[in-house]
Amino acid sequence: MGFASRLSLGVKPSKALLFLPCLFTVLLVGSQGESTAMDNVATERLAEESHRQDSANLLIFIMLLTLTILTIWLFKHRRFRFLHETGLAMIYGLLVGVILRFGVHVPQNMSNVILSCAVNASPATLLVTFDPEVFFNILLPPIIFHAGYSLKRRHFFRNIGSILTYAFMGTVISCFVIGLTMYGFVSFMKVVGQLGGDFYFTDCLFFGAIVSATDPVTVLAIFNELKVDVDLYALLFGESVLNDAVAIVLSSSIVAYQPAGDNSHSFEATAMLKSFGVFLGVFSGSFALGVATGVMTALVTKFTKLRDFPLLETALFFLMSWSTFLLAEACGFTGVVAVLFCGITQAHYTYNNLSPESQDRTKQLFELLNFLAENFIFSYMGLTLFSFQSHVFNPLFIIGAFVAVFLGRAANIYPLSFLLNLGRKNKIGSNFQHVMMFAGLRGAMTFALSIRDTATYARQMMFSTTLLIVFFTVWICGGGTTPMLSFMSIPVGVDSDQESSVTMVDGSQRRNTKHESAWPFRIWYTFDHNYLKPLLTHSGPPLTATMPACCGPLARCLTSPQAYENEGQLHDDDSDFILNDANVSSMYADVTVSTDASGSRTVNRKRSTAAAAGTGGGPSDEGLDQELALGEHELVIRGTRLVLPMDDPVEPPTTVTLPPPPSPPRSDPRRHRL
Amino acid sequence: MGFASRLSLGVKPSKALLFLPCLFTVLLVGSQGESTAMDNVATERLAEESHRQDSANLLIFIMLLTLTILTIWLFKHRRFRFLHETGLAMIYGLLVGVILRFGVHVPQNMSNVILSCAVNASPATLLVTFDPEVFFNILLPPIIFHAGYSLKRRHFFRNIGSILTYAFMGTVISCFVIGLTMYGFVSFMKVVGQLGGDFYFTDCLFFGAIVSATDPVTVLAIFNELKVDVDLYALLFGESVLNDAVAIVLSSSIVAYQPAGDNSHSFEATAMLKSFGVFLGVFSGSFALGVATGVMTALVTKFTKLRDFPLLETALFFLMSWSTFLLAEACGFTGVVAVLFCGITQAHYTYNNLSPESQDRTKQLFELLNFLAENFIFSYMGLTLFSFQSHVFNPLFIIGAFVAVFLGRAANIYPLSFLLNLGRKNKIGSNFQHVMMFAGLRGAMTFALSIRDTATYARQMMFSTTLLIVFFTVWICGGGTTPMLSFMSIPVGVDSDQESSVTMVDGSQRRNTKHESAWPFRIWYTFDHNYLKPLLTHSGPPLTATMPACCGPLARCLTSPQAYENEGQLHDDDSDFILNDANVSSMYADVTVSTDASGSRTVNRKRSTAAAAGTGGGPSDEGLDQELALGEHELVIRGTRLVLPMDDPVEPPTTVTLPPPPSPPRSDPRRHRL
Repeated sequence: MGFASRLSLGVKPSKALLFLPCLFTVLLVGSQGESTAMDNVATERLAEESHRQDSANLLIFIMLLTLTILTIWLFKHRRFRFLHETGLAMIYGLLVGVILRFGVHVPQNMSNVILSCAVNASPATLLVTFDPEVFFNILLPPIIFHAGYSLKRRHFFRNIGSILTYAFMGTVISCFVIGLTMYGFVSFMKVVGQLGGDFYFTDCLFFGAIVSATDPVTVLAIFNELKVDVDLYALLFGESVLNDAVAIVLSSSIVAYQPAGDNSHSFEATAMLKSFGVFLGVFSGSFALGVATGVMTALVTKFTKLRDFPLLETALFFLMSWSTFLLAEACGFTGVVAVLFCGITQAHYTYNNLSPESQDRTKQLFELLNFLAENFIFSYMGLTLFSFQSHVFNPLFIIGAFVAVFLGRAANIYPLSFLLNLGRKNKIGSNFQHVMMFAGLRGAMTFALSIRDTATYARQMMFSTTLLIVFFTVWICGGGTTPMLSFMSIPVGVDSDQESSVTMVDGSQRRNTKHESAWPFRIWYTFDHNYLKPLLTHSGPPLTATMPACCGPLARCLTSPQAYENEGQLHDDDSDFILNDANVSSMYADVTVSTDASGSRTVNRKRSTAAAAGTGGGPSDEGLDQELALGEHELVIRGTRLVLPMDDPVEPPTTVTLPPPPSPPRSDPRRHRL
Repeated sequence: MGFASRLSLGVKPSKALLFLPCLFTVLLVGSQGESTAMDNVATERLAEESHRQDSANLLIFIMLLTLTILTIWLFKHRRFRFLHETGLAMIYGLLVGVILRFGVHVPQNMSNVILSCAVNASPATLLVTFDPEVFFNILLPPIIFHAGYSLKRRHFFRNIGSILTYAFMGTVISCFVIGLTMYGFVSFMKVVGQLGGDFYFTDCLFFGAIVSATDPVTVLAIFNELKVDVDLYALLFGESVLNDAVAIVLSSSIVAYQPAGDNSHSFEATAMLKSFGVFLGVFSGSFALGVATGVMTALVTKFTKLRDFPLLETALFFLMSWSTFLLAEACGFTGVVAVLFCGITQAHYTYNNLSPESQDRTKQLFELLNFLAENFIFSYMGLTLFSFQSHVFNPLFIIGAFVAVFLGRAANIYPLSFLLNLGRKNKIGSNFQHVMMFAGLRGAMTFALSIRDTATYARQMMFSTTLLIVFFTVWICGGGTTPMLSFMSIPVGVDSDQESSVTMVDGSQRRNTKHESAWPFRIWYTFDHNYLKPLLTHSGPPLTATMPACCGPLARCLTSPQAYENEGQLHDDDSDFILNDANVSSMYADVTVSTDASGSRTVNRKRSTAAAAGTGGGPSDEGLDQELALGEHELVIRGTRLVLPMDDPVEPPTTVTLPPPPSPPRSDPRRHRL
């Protein structure tokens, strides 16, 4: 069975050896020569047996995912939208967990197991578990990379100030609010005598950090389908993507807090400063590495003609993105964070250099990996509720955690929104704030962080509680998104292209985007547009035009021939990610054609849509809420635009002459989450 | 660090835990509770350190692959074709192996290491090694699946009798010829006193089995580029795909040969019969499983409307194909073999049910996985020449092995070709036979089989020798393919579409394919066309037409609505895989347009082409050989068809009116290997 088993003989070697792509064993030459041990037939047979068992276990998961896919299809087919695929995966995981625990392996004492449903029963149950590091090294990276790679960039950059505020300050606030609240609860539990082990303040803070990572997949999938306001989408998506990074670095900084001396949980300024230094160092290091590999990929794809061979190009893109993760881990930074910023950089620069086929390929590849990894994590989550052996469900702690999570989210959203609104022209309405509050789902990152270490009593209690929080938020908050949207009168059916196209017509789009941002971002915009884009991609103005005259030869050498062609039309090609043929044509159909295949009902809708948009008559909230609650999926499926009245109305979808979209990508970016 | 490390504490737990997608640990509830051990800070720090080391090691490989990709691009860009990407990957692996061994880690005694270049020197060298099972469980499955999924099916089925003969009988013959030859050499070595350990007859046979798996990636890539005769391509590709399966089952049957009693290497009829039984059982079991999951996927994709959601469809396809592997491994069959037949079934049935987007996605996905896995294996191969610690290079054994491999290949190709030609209408010419002989490269499968067990002296010697065989065949035979083709006067520039289109015009295509096959295959064709295709796909005649009247309701229920539309035009949609728009249009350009962008040189070529094809004048071998040797890459790149004279000439590329190809797929299947 080879090298590795020589190192770990006797501990079921092939357990570890089976499905791992890259099990490395670094051998020193000195440690060879015991190869006679390999002849041990018994060991080999044991390994073979466990290999079979492992295959069977993994098969359970594959079947679970297959079942999930088929059910998702059924749901989509029947247009049933209250349960997202991740919620579904959790339910199937739960069912399999129940079967594995109570059904299959203990038929002899079946009856009394069912009677005594306590979680620590049935000592003979066979369990399916993964090494938690799998989540961090295999499953999370593609999810996070995909999040970065599929950021709707213009809307993201337009709101970048707010997003950064929510993601950084908000997560830190949330972490400390939750930590303090939990410390209060834990102190109370100690007094009451409900605490079965140690639980320090650092544990409370750690808990605060891990449950501060929001993951509104469900909500965003519904937003995507209903075409909810793009700014709200950008705020939520951007926040959730970035706060994953903040939470992961924050939690590792808290773990790094180790005061000198005996009492390892007292307050000490030096240790705290060190933790703060760790936070800054790890975050900026990971950021720099991610951006650096992204930039390198952009340069390679720009200056070679690799685009003639899409397979090579896609392979290079994949390998470079993977190497970001490995490089960060090898340097002691956080791979997942590096991968996130690598994804954003790749989308912003490299994507423009790729051949159309590679653009499709890379997007589809990471879409698939994201889909599989996400559903795998969520179904595993369902499974662990019954298969994890050291659950500590403490009612008081759980109640405290729910209260703390609520408070933490509120302390993040409302005060920060108030502060941000002081500076924003396009205010974040109170209904938007309520939706952001409501959409603070916890998902894959929270789970991965909490399962990573379940050695102590405190960590076990955290893990069990976290599981419940994830279940609750994904099922209840996720399922309640559509009613919530209609209750909060959030505009749906807003076409992101529409708005941007309208502003593009009057030529103020770029200025708009800039003016909505604070001055550091305006400087960044100019720098990016004048120097980075031309340097790293084929687009943008030629460097010869933007760089000082003294750098002429260098500028000529670095500018791509295509850039000169673009010189006349300096459009912002961030819109590449958003505009596409299909959308535009359906818009035309919407505006100019008065009757279509769906007949009278559509005409009815159009009337109420027009009324709601303020072009025909006054707003009629009740009727529209009803409309929204009853028939919104049909609306969306027919591509009809429904615009509800809001506090500060955006441009109504009036008849405008649209310019042909600049070089639309071949596939629909909005399909990135089905 | 979680569950797994609890099991394997003290043996560098995180070594195993890092990059594995699915490290399973099956815990019995009884074995819990030692969680206090987790607090061990030293263990954690050790784990972290080794995690970093592992990341760095894997990074070396990623960088190696990146470098390979860039060099491949350069080679393709400069149209240099003597070194295939796999050969290149090996060279880079070799270089890194040399650097790791002699360069980096032993700077203090650098000079004397370089002086004494013996392979077992430098005890302080750091080595990068994988668990060999990684090859079988992670890297080989996508390669083999891709091979099955990209079989050019019609040409494959037209030659299926010959392919099966070469793959089954040929591999068995080769195995025994090599085994016997090696036994002779080994006996001689024993007499001379050159053998440093045991080497039994079963070892010889095992060696015969593993080096009988041919893998002509390099050759086929060149064939693909040069458009070598499709039948030759089909014979070689089909043989190499299937003989991998035969060799892997054969080698495991030989390992299973264990006579009772003390002398475990004597001949015993019962044990041999048992081995034969193992062979049959494992092979047929793997075959049945692979086909079964393929059929299941076809049924699911046919009877659901999953095609509306390409992401779900692709994910399902991927998961079902992966589950084949796991199912086979869990049942004790061979996953790689099951995956091969699953791939063929998926290509034959499921592929027709997929949406065009999913067809692209699945092909591109497996193309990418295949590319990465293949290059990974080959670069690792290069690395092991210097990094493997137990090499046994025995000059006599190596010479013997080369002789045996040559004899084994000859005993496979020539006698079987003679026998096959007795029955074939379209004879396998002697030049074809020489090329098949020459193209018997050894590659990934041989390497994976030989590295799987390197515990004994015999196995170590086999491994070292196998490495050399792979290097030699890939570099020498692979690089010599183009000269060999021109030396053997093999027709290049034959368009697979052309031939098939021509036969399609006179309506005899299906009959041709059938008539070239023996009666069992004719029965299979009819059954497949009348029952399986309509049952499992949307194509073919409706079951209501082919099934007996009594099964009417069932037939109606199982027939897809599209099948009735196809009723009129019962074309064989195997051609879907071969025909496509681009090819046909370039053909038109070739035949009808007399001048094109490349000007006078093309006109010259056209003249000689026409001469060679026998439409203008007599053949002129010398000039054509020269043509072939000097400028063939330019020929191919411009899409000009060059047909050399052969023993029994096929249809010349005269002007024919082509029907529009039936529903051409959107992507070019010939791009499957760049």
